[in-house]
Amino acid sequence: MFEAVLRDVVESTEGAVASLVMDLDGIPLDSYSRPDAPFDIKAVGVEFGVVIKSIAQAAQMLSAGNAQEVTIVADSLVTLIRLLSPRYFIALTLRPGGNAGRGRYLLRTRAPELLEELS
Amino acid sequence: MFEAVLRDVVESTEGAVASLVMDLDGIPLDSYSRPDAPFDIKAVGVEFGVVIKSIAQAAQMLSAGNAQEVTIVADSLVTLIRLLSPRYFIALTLRPGGNAGRGRYLLRTRAPELLEELS
Repeated sequence: MFEAVLRDVVESTEGAVASLVMDLDGIPLDSYSRPDAPFDIKAVGVEFGVVIKSIAQAAQMLSAGNAQEVTIVADSLVTLIRLLSPRYFIALTLRPGGNAGRGRYLLRTRAPELLEELS
Repeated sequence: MFEAVLRDVVESTEGAVASLVMDLDGIPLDSYSRPDAPFDIKAVGVEFGVVIKSIAQAAQMLSAGNAQEVTIVADSLVTLIRLLSPRYFIALTLRPGGNAGRGRYLLRTRAPELLEELS
């Protein structure tokens, strides 16, 4: 059901390879991968999903409000994550050097559509 | 001993409020805060330090190499983190709307100096 948005976000971001919507317990709702994606987007979601939960709790502990967005840059993988609600997030993976600014912009502007589907 | 770099990074980034060098077990080596900093940078380091450790492990699990950089955007706090080594990181906190791009650039370019001090 999220397929159109997930594909759009990947295909409109230079260097992007995959995207998914997942809940914070690691259950994927939908995902989209380019055929040449070097990482399994569901594995990325599961690994970093656990971390997102901790980040959301840490932000609350610090009275910094809700966590909105997390960017993780590793040697061979850039992961952009946007919290859609306290329960769901969207992740977009890029190759190093991909256009992370554009990716973040698209996740932010397309989030309301996804959120509508989720409610 | 890291004081000059920590202060420079804060004072040269629009919207930045504090910075610190910490090890991944949450022990701060040095920190710098503007007098009006709305959050205790050591508390931020401790809360997000735990998360950084998990992120580094997750990146390894995914065969994505070493984690280099993490950005966390919450409602009232933006935190930029750069891994200096498998043991230490530098964190920079900004108000929402601060110049995160400039902050990331400074953390990246000043990291070698800090790393030299650490070795």
